[in-house]
Amino acid sequence: MIRRMFTCCLLAAALPVLAQQEDSLRIRAIADEILENGKAYESLRVLTKQVGARLAGSPGMYKAEAWGKKTLEQSGADKVWLQECMVPHWVRGGKDQAYASAPAKNMPLDILALGGSVGTGAKGVKAPVILINNFDELEQRKEEISGKIVFYNYKFNNKLVKTFLAYGDAGKYRGQGPSRAAKYGAVAVLVRSMSNAADNNPHTGGTNYNDSFPKIPAAALGLIDADRLASLIGANKNTSVFIKTMAKMLPDTVGHNVIGEWKGTEFPEQIITIGGHLDSWDPAEGAHDDGAGCVQSIEVLRALKAIGYRPKRTIRIVLFANEENGLRGGTKYAEEAKAKGEQHYFALESDAGGFTPRGFGFTVSADQLTKIRQWAPLFTPYGVHELNMGGGGADIGPLNRTFQTPLAGLQPDSQRYFDIHHARSDVFEAVNKRELELGAVNMAALIYLVDKYGL
Amino acid sequence: MIRRMFTCCLLAAALPVLAQQEDSLRIRAIADEILENGKAYESLRVLTKQVGARLAGSPGMYKAEAWGKKTLEQSGADKVWLQECMVPHWVRGGKDQAYASAPAKNMPLDILALGGSVGTGAKGVKAPVILINNFDELEQRKEEISGKIVFYNYKFNNKLVKTFLAYGDAGKYRGQGPSRAAKYGAVAVLVRSMSNAADNNPHTGGTNYNDSFPKIPAAALGLIDADRLASLIGANKNTSVFIKTMAKMLPDTVGHNVIGEWKGTEFPEQIITIGGHLDSWDPAEGAHDDGAGCVQSIEVLRALKAIGYRPKRTIRIVLFANEENGLRGGTKYAEEAKAKGEQHYFALESDAGGFTPRGFGFTVSADQLTKIRQWAPLFTPYGVHELNMGGGGADIGPLNRTFQTPLAGLQPDSQRYFDIHHARSDVFEAVNKRELELGAVNMAALIYLVDKYGL
Repeated sequence: MIRRMFTCCLLAAALPVLAQQEDSLRIRAIADEILENGKAYESLRVLTKQVGARLAGSPGMYKAEAWGKKTLEQSGADKVWLQECMVPHWVRGGKDQAYASAPAKNMPLDILALGGSVGTGAKGVKAPVILINNFDELEQRKEEISGKIVFYNYKFNNKLVKTFLAYGDAGKYRGQGPSRAAKYGAVAVLVRSMSNAADNNPHTGGTNYNDSFPKIPAAALGLIDADRLASLIGANKNTSVFIKTMAKMLPDTVGHNVIGEWKGTEFPEQIITIGGHLDSWDPAEGAHDDGAGCVQSIEVLRALKAIGYRPKRTIRIVLFANEENGLRGGTKYAEEAKAKGEQHYFALESDAGGFTPRGFGFTVSADQLTKIRQWAPLFTPYGVHELNMGGGGADIGPLNRTFQTPLAGLQPDSQRYFDIHHARSDVFEAVNKRELELGAVNMAALIYLVDKYGL
Repeated sequence: MIRRMFTCCLLAAALPVLAQQEDSLRIRAIADEILENGKAYESLRVLTKQVGARLAGSPGMYKAEAWGKKTLEQSGADKVWLQECMVPHWVRGGKDQAYASAPAKNMPLDILALGGSVGTGAKGVKAPVILINNFDELEQRKEEISGKIVFYNYKFNNKLVKTFLAYGDAGKYRGQGPSRAAKYGAVAVLVRSMSNAADNNPHTGGTNYNDSFPKIPAAALGLIDADRLASLIGANKNTSVFIKTMAKMLPDTVGHNVIGEWKGTEFPEQIITIGGHLDSWDPAEGAHDDGAGCVQSIEVLRALKAIGYRPKRTIRIVLFANEENGLRGGTKYAEEAKAKGEQHYFALESDAGGFTPRGFGFTVSADQLTKIRQWAPLFTPYGVHELNMGGGGADIGPLNRTFQTPLAGLQPDSQRYFDIHHARSDVFEAVNKRELELGAVNMAALIYLVDKYGL
């Protein structure tokens, strides 16, 4: 209450009523344009249905780059170009297979090898399985690991209302789990998916091998199979698991960031970057992750042009390469910016799904956050209430590390995100047109305010 | 009144940090219980999949009443009973059929007769169709209406961020449209569905005949068919439409509110009602409308008991009969309360879908709203930011009109609601477990605070 009153007073002092009214009308015009004539949803349909999956190095990646270039050109960018960067080239190599067997029972398991995983070879791997609930238990039972398949059954914490916190908590089993098990002689790893979905889809995602230990095959298991396997192991101490995956890492290949620029009228040297990542995991269409962020970013450009806005600063829409398994696109973008002596004034990323927007998270100074919060009443009609410290995006992180560029990340409602994240269910049909559009509305509003008033 | 104000001041002065901390912990315990051990989702699965559609008077209504009684008993109510009320008994009578024909073309139309509509008879009705965009146009073209089928093509306003406003705006074409067309001699009506869905499902819902004019058959058309029919009419002035529906109104029959009570410890005579409506339209499972509100209301009771809360006031969970086409349940509940001299202290309804909660709307005094807003920080961790005047629910409305009972309505995110509202797509699969549960969390938190501190 007190904070709200304080903010109101500040607003009254800093932004005269007339300016507030003008901003409110401008943002209303942006919203009307996007909700009535929006192109983001149709654009996402093309990206997901005609391009589809687009992991770094895959044929889909090149199709997606061509789609991005064409779509940015059609949306009114002054100039569109591809920025080359080398990207990792991991391939799944076919359908991953697995089953569990106990003395009187065989149980098929639906798995997806983790991104970056090595393969098992054509014969697969079969070994006794050991259920490990968490890393503490792994350490306590390290003598029992050798020669076995470790099944990490760490649960996604349903009590955390902000599901990204649960993801951060559970994600280390996917990232570090395989090498920590290999350290004690495990031959392969299964990981319970980082999800609270009601279905059985396994959720892939990158794993990070520690070069000090052997690289062992690793795969994700859906929640229903994870529970069934845990029951089987509970009932039969002699349960074993078979895993076959032909996954492998090929030599790095050439990928591209796709960049569309709209020159500023007053401070053209000051660059505002808006983006999402163009790559997506191979089993699905990458609709929420992160087709949504790409089409929303492009929609910001299209809508601001459509309402006749002329930016003071240069606006760049960047569809980043290779966020999922390397971050080479974001890294390259910041490196080249530094080499060219560019000024990066602000960056905004949308990479948390195309759901109804709830807020923005910021990596800015305390003074900048205070200034941003003066704009709060301008966002509330469009559903954004949370303007808090902490946020940005993986792809724009290097800009902050290189230039101390202030960052923002769109924070949509997160309840459904880990139902579909990195799973086969991340398809166009899981995206709602209005929710996607409202994200773009709030992004465009933030860009308008940052461009107009500065930070 | 004076005592209440005095209490209020005391509270404002004396809701010290310790009380806030205690409330915060209590609400955290409620949330943990619901997010970890919640029964609402499984309960909704049974209601939607084993009972299914449950329009007033249908066999589903009786099955739903039995489900409600059993579920309330299992959830720990002291006492569960059925409160009888007479309900309308409208039946669809079979599959509704329609097509359009222009000189060189026949086009099938997917329709659903509006609730309460009369039938066409087995031979159906065929007549020239006239497209009417709004009531102003109807009045201007009243001479052209006689003998025709009127097709109201009024668009759902996509620019309204709060979709219930768009529903309020367009809904009059469903409610008043048939009789206003009949006034000028129309023989039947088609209405563009009140929706911004991307699919073609027609959305039914009640129509209200004006007894001064003939009752003519009326049906809803999905958005894709509405656009196709508009194009056909635009290209062919001589387009006609055929409609067949066997809908009819049977004599009123017996239905029931299902009520579960938990006696208060300190002011047992003061009743807090929490509810949703048990009936649903016939073409779907009524998952969001309003299975969600029913299972959330029951979950409030279960969770408060599970954390060991003992209410000061009497809490009643009411699964209301016949909200959709008569409001007889809500009316009966208030009538009987008045006859018995009951005290109705507060009422809360959930009837806007099982989506992520955004806020509550209140029908309370300005002082009461001020008091409620002091609790705002207790809701923000669970996603509720909007505590505004205006709201309640159709079923609890009669309590306010009878006793001036303060009302609240849960306001979930509304972006997806009119995709599925009254359409075949309102099924269990459209509900997300966590979103449903978070609604129940915030409802339970509000009930806890109102019961503890009073209004």
